[in-house]
Amino acid sequence: MRLRELGEDKLLQKILPQLHRNNRVITGAGDDCAVVRFRGAKDLLLLKTDCVVENIHFAPNTDARAVGWKAMMRTFSDFAAMSGVPEFALVTLAIESKRELSWIEKLYRGLNRAAARFRVAIVGGETSDTRGSTVVAISAVGYVERDRCIWRSGGNANDDLFVTGRLGGSVRTRHLKFVPRIDEARWLTSHFHIHAMIDLSDGLGTDLPRLAQASKLGFIIEQNALPLASGCSVEQAISEGEDYELLFALSPRNRESLERSWTGAFPKIPLTRIGQLTAKREIEKPKFPAGYVHFRQRR
Amino acid sequence: MRLRELGEDKLLQKILPQLHRNNRVITGAGDDCAVVRFRGAKDLLLLKTDCVVENIHFAPNTDARAVGWKAMMRTFSDFAAMSGVPEFALVTLAIESKRELSWIEKLYRGLNRAAARFRVAIVGGETSDTRGSTVVAISAVGYVERDRCIWRSGGNANDDLFVTGRLGGSVRTRHLKFVPRIDEARWLTSHFHIHAMIDLSDGLGTDLPRLAQASKLGFIIEQNALPLASGCSVEQAISEGEDYELLFALSPRNRESLERSWTGAFPKIPLTRIGQLTAKREIEKPKFPAGYVHFRQRR
Repeated sequence: MRLRELGEDKLLQKILPQLHRNNRVITGAGDDCAVVRFRGAKDLLLLKTDCVVENIHFAPNTDARAVGWKAMMRTFSDFAAMSGVPEFALVTLAIESKRELSWIEKLYRGLNRAAARFRVAIVGGETSDTRGSTVVAISAVGYVERDRCIWRSGGNANDDLFVTGRLGGSVRTRHLKFVPRIDEARWLTSHFHIHAMIDLSDGLGTDLPRLAQASKLGFIIEQNALPLASGCSVEQAISEGEDYELLFALSPRNRESLERSWTGAFPKIPLTRIGQLTAKREIEKPKFPAGYVHFRQRR
Repeated sequence: MRLRELGEDKLLQKILPQLHRNNRVITGAGDDCAVVRFRGAKDLLLLKTDCVVENIHFAPNTDARAVGWKAMMRTFSDFAAMSGVPEFALVTLAIESKRELSWIEKLYRGLNRAAARFRVAIVGGETSDTRGSTVVAISAVGYVERDRCIWRSGGNANDDLFVTGRLGGSVRTRHLKFVPRIDEARWLTSHFHIHAMIDLSDGLGTDLPRLAQASKLGFIIEQNALPLASGCSVEQAISEGEDYELLFALSPRNRESLERSWTGAFPKIPLTRIGQLTAKREIEKPKFPAGYVHFRQRR
């Protein structure tokens, strides 16, 4: 069987359960970040790797500064999803040796600017020759307090589902410029008991089912409530991906209090209740198209 | 200017000093691993990323299990160089979607076997489509006790220089099967005051000057003393690279004691004094050819 017939999720489902673990691992592959214990530290250590690939995630003529920014921020967005704080980043670059040095300098300018935005130190840069697409892989390491780590799996039936920002249309330009919702996630977990959270990288149509499945629940979405980016249809908002907004679940008890205090803290960022988690037996087959999945749909 | 005219070391010299840092960084890019402090932990956190690329580090028809083993072990070898212990690994894979699933399964079998050999947990696996060479990037995270971390920069004038194992000929098959010298490095720092250490990945001709330069010293090598792998010339031992042996410096006071106790601990692994570090003014321009350097010499 070839990779493209399987898709990334199914591939990982096949491989991940077989990976070697040890007794310091709290969460291995399968959530936004890995969560592990580090010798004698009270806080948890978060680990995440991600990559952007030429001709897949960016076009050959894309400004290298934007490529660097996006590569770094995609990884940070996974820290936001766990309410974590990235502190250190490693860069692995595979690039053809005939490329201009100035491209790499611009790439690093973008990486550096993104790292500085969140006071992250870039502590390693490995570079190799390749034949074909440039690959920029970022690994980041950070922390989250034990009582503030949010998994995908903590949702309860009847929890309200909220998203930050607006959905859809990111593929035009926003996917190269976005700022991951780290500050917002940290604010959420310092003020509320968030049950489950994920960042919308592959689109609501893919990421919401992931959160619901991890929580062993179904969900109901009020499509009319979706916060559409200007000029976007409901379908685009659901399936385009690369929004890098937060999707989270919390008890309906906290809804009013959340909506009131959010507006005070982040007056410019919409926060929208888009539906709720439901007991498994009520699950409705999602009517909407799935978001972007590697090896299946390609832009 | 194009990359191949510059070479990897010069490229990194240009970029690394500009990277964003923070006050938890003890050593950023520039040694075998990055060394940082993690909130409240007594031990130091070590971080390292590395990659192997199809057509550069392995041939398209190389057994995928061997590729996985090599990718993981190369990264672990950098932990050995700091006397560190790897604990967690992340895998980033860029591969064309037309490839057979069985190739990835074999790759992960090799990665997994290497991780299990050192009780390392693989806690993340990111996979992306690409166009061209397959890239396998590994990031590993681990620890070293504060008083056992060994940098390249700690060498003293008149220190003896030792290497483990035999040099040269690794390109034939050993580079796909080697076991990094983690156990040996841990033994060394639990019994001796090692001043400086590095792993020989690019060849003695490249890695020894790196250690000497980091220590602001020169060096003298006794070419007749080099422990040659069977069938190898001195030139091959110096320039081929991929030995993944340890090169380290310690006081001549400890020489006898080291040689005696090493043989008891590792009877099957040669340990050879190959020369010494010298005060800068005595530096002799290395007569031997440099080892493998990305973007410059290619096999």
